[in-house]
Amino acid sequence: MSAANPQFLKFIDENQDAFIQRLAEAVAIPSVSGDPAYRPDVHRMGDWLASKLESLGVKVEKRPLGKQILEGQELDLPSALLGELGNDPKKKTLLIYGHFDVQPASMSDGWKHPPFELTIDPEGSGKLFGRGSSDDKGPILGWLNVIEAHVKLGLELPVNLKMCFEGMEESGSEGLDELISEEKDKFFKGVDCVCISDNYWLNTTTPCLTYGLRGIAYFKISVSGPARDLHSGVFGATVHEPMTDLIHLMSKLVTTDGKILIPGLMDLVAPLTDEERKRYEVINASIKDFDDAVGAAITFSDDKVATLMGRMRYPSLSLHGIEGAFYGAGCKTVIPAAVHGKFSIRLVPNLTLNEVTKLVCDYVNAEFAKIKTKSKMTVEMLHGGEPWVADPNHYSYRAAHKATESVYGCAPDYTREGGSIPVTLSFADALKCNVLLLPMGRGDDGAHSTNEKLDTDNFIRGSKLLGSYLYELAVAE
Amino acid sequence: MSAANPQFLKFIDENQDAFIQRLAEAVAIPSVSGDPAYRPDVHRMGDWLASKLESLGVKVEKRPLGKQILEGQELDLPSALLGELGNDPKKKTLLIYGHFDVQPASMSDGWKHPPFELTIDPEGSGKLFGRGSSDDKGPILGWLNVIEAHVKLGLELPVNLKMCFEGMEESGSEGLDELISEEKDKFFKGVDCVCISDNYWLNTTTPCLTYGLRGIAYFKISVSGPARDLHSGVFGATVHEPMTDLIHLMSKLVTTDGKILIPGLMDLVAPLTDEERKRYEVINASIKDFDDAVGAAITFSDDKVATLMGRMRYPSLSLHGIEGAFYGAGCKTVIPAAVHGKFSIRLVPNLTLNEVTKLVCDYVNAEFAKIKTKSKMTVEMLHGGEPWVADPNHYSYRAAHKATESVYGCAPDYTREGGSIPVTLSFADALKCNVLLLPMGRGDDGAHSTNEKLDTDNFIRGSKLLGSYLYELAVAE
Repeated sequence: MSAANPQFLKFIDENQDAFIQRLAEAVAIPSVSGDPAYRPDVHRMGDWLASKLESLGVKVEKRPLGKQILEGQELDLPSALLGELGNDPKKKTLLIYGHFDVQPASMSDGWKHPPFELTIDPEGSGKLFGRGSSDDKGPILGWLNVIEAHVKLGLELPVNLKMCFEGMEESGSEGLDELISEEKDKFFKGVDCVCISDNYWLNTTTPCLTYGLRGIAYFKISVSGPARDLHSGVFGATVHEPMTDLIHLMSKLVTTDGKILIPGLMDLVAPLTDEERKRYEVINASIKDFDDAVGAAITFSDDKVATLMGRMRYPSLSLHGIEGAFYGAGCKTVIPAAVHGKFSIRLVPNLTLNEVTKLVCDYVNAEFAKIKTKSKMTVEMLHGGEPWVADPNHYSYRAAHKATESVYGCAPDYTREGGSIPVTLSFADALKCNVLLLPMGRGDDGAHSTNEKLDTDNFIRGSKLLGSYLYELAVAE
Repeated sequence: MSAANPQFLKFIDENQDAFIQRLAEAVAIPSVSGDPAYRPDVHRMGDWLASKLESLGVKVEKRPLGKQILEGQELDLPSALLGELGNDPKKKTLLIYGHFDVQPASMSDGWKHPPFELTIDPEGSGKLFGRGSSDDKGPILGWLNVIEAHVKLGLELPVNLKMCFEGMEESGSEGLDELISEEKDKFFKGVDCVCISDNYWLNTTTPCLTYGLRGIAYFKISVSGPARDLHSGVFGATVHEPMTDLIHLMSKLVTTDGKILIPGLMDLVAPLTDEERKRYEVINASIKDFDDAVGAAITFSDDKVATLMGRMRYPSLSLHGIEGAFYGAGCKTVIPAAVHGKFSIRLVPNLTLNEVTKLVCDYVNAEFAKIKTKSKMTVEMLHGGEPWVADPNHYSYRAAHKATESVYGCAPDYTREGGSIPVTLSFADALKCNVLLLPMGRGDDGAHSTNEKLDTDNFIRGSKLLGSYLYELAVAE
């Protein structure tokens, strides 16, 4: 039994073609934030979105975020859009977030269709191919669809909406944290909860609500010895080699079956509750899904729950590579003078960046003291972000749960993402309120890859889901 | 008491300026064999050398070696020069070898003077700066000086000379092995021993005779798992990571103090004899020399003899790098799909390439079987060369010893090189005779580096040394 107005749901169904047409307009603007050549298109995309919002009665403020230096050029950052629709003190106020910039894309990467022309799959699958279709223009336009339906039908929205749309998400959300911090007691004042639609279902069939993200601590171990690279014929078996020392240190960080060897680190992980375990048990997933996703049968565990928890609620340690060593094809016989091992740890509650950094540095220093070498070693944390987890029993999640049931006829999976969406933590920290990640797209949308797509069904039912969520949120307690 | 004709020694002294002028002519031809743009200069250098030899009565045959593909271009290999001077059956026949090609060089690499203009150090040190001055045009011209002195003085050479000069040494001596093999019973028939002047003193003060070279076995361990690179946020703690497996395998190869961990490998090393140990004890070298050479105090041992033997008569295992992993600056959070660890072992008697390859592959396979992983692994030997050692008590060495004493007033150090000069092994194997490495230049000549130089004193005394060696060789038994 849906709380949503049936007229709204009907409007969405009846206007599918126009919605796809509007998505095609958005995809046609190649708003690649990471390439200076496309910066005018990012600005243009912001203007396009602002004018669409304004035409539907949204009060929009374009907020300049200053300048940046990119590839040697000084560029204006794309303005963030702060939108407001409704300010009835009797209604809840929801902040929605999305980003209108995209990842780079070109035919030469292997696209089947021009990436900046939305292409309805000629094979009839209903897939809408195009860069940004799923990440994140589709979800933003989902909100537009919801607002348009209400305006055209003369219906009131069940909640007040505040909006924050940015054009730099794919390039580190430059300038956004400062904006959130400045406006937390001004524009963002009165926000009851936040909804972000910028992630994906775990699989291709089951809607989900996402209530956690892992943080990250990225480390560099630097080992140096000789003043310059040496010839292994001339100096092999005479001097300590930094590469040997580094490989020994890197071999002490994690076992081949994924156990993190940093003493004390696993003790910090929040204990697993029964309630939480049940959430993983009911997730619609299988080991085969993982095998398919990576293209090989290489999961640590044959157990679905253990594997899901590996991604979502436990830390991981990955060795990424070595800077300064030989990396080419062929047979260079160098003894590298200085090498830098790179690894990162994905953080989960209750690991904090500070504690993990101290544990790692203390351990690496202690292990280095044990090995016989005259090399020099330093270890440092290069960048990091805290983990985030929300209360999935909050009324916002219960509202999204009900909306999912009414639109999809099934309960959503409750997932946590293994990676990071830093803006989530920024909102949660600054506004001190619940944040819900409510994805529109499927796990195979290929957000940062070639042939990114959004299924028509996800676009249309996703728009209904976002609107239904507003209705459920209005009455949730 | 020198066996050399005093007139010869006097001629060398009196013609120093002309000899330097001729070296300048040779250096001015930029015979860089590794760069297609300079190939005509390599041919020109061969022609220049042939005409100089012919003008002194040497019978020269230019031997085409076929073609090669270099950077997509089909190029003629520079012809080798086979020279012959004297064929008195009562005299010994010595084969001398040198190469007239050079390493690349440009001012932008940091040269103080134009690399292809021989520059007498304006600071008065007597250093002759220029690419090829020491490697290997200086030594070749040393032989020319010896021959010219005898021709001009109307003296007979004390031995028959055969010569093999090539123009591809800096680019793998392409075509030369085939020539040696073809001619071993023809042109090279009757050769009693071989002298190669293409290496360096260990230090800057003490002449040396070099009687050994390490071989090499270069290995690649390949570990693969997922079908493509993965995001560590999404897949960290769910799947086996090839990089973790590889780092564990690479950590099992050698200790941080240089001990090779391949079972059975060290058992193959030829036992150290007292006579041999004494040869190292009297070498003019110190730990400080090593520290200076590498720019840091990082020798495994504080003992000179142990350190010299580490370079010269023991195997070494160096980890060079990893292909396929992240190698840039910054913080990429990739789980690489497939990684290839590169390492090599320097070979000494009695390690053979075949035995070492089997020991390494068996060991790596056994270690891989021990680790818990679903990754795939292969290990292979990519390229290799056998070690070489000559009998330093052979009459050719005794002749060179005496010549050194008479020219330099001191006994030579007896050294072995840690690296390889493959042509040495080619001659030793094909002609089944003693090979002597008799260097002209000093340890700091910077053969493959910027500001390559040859000291005037080494050029002049080196020319006397080569000539005196011929006289000593003639009477040695």
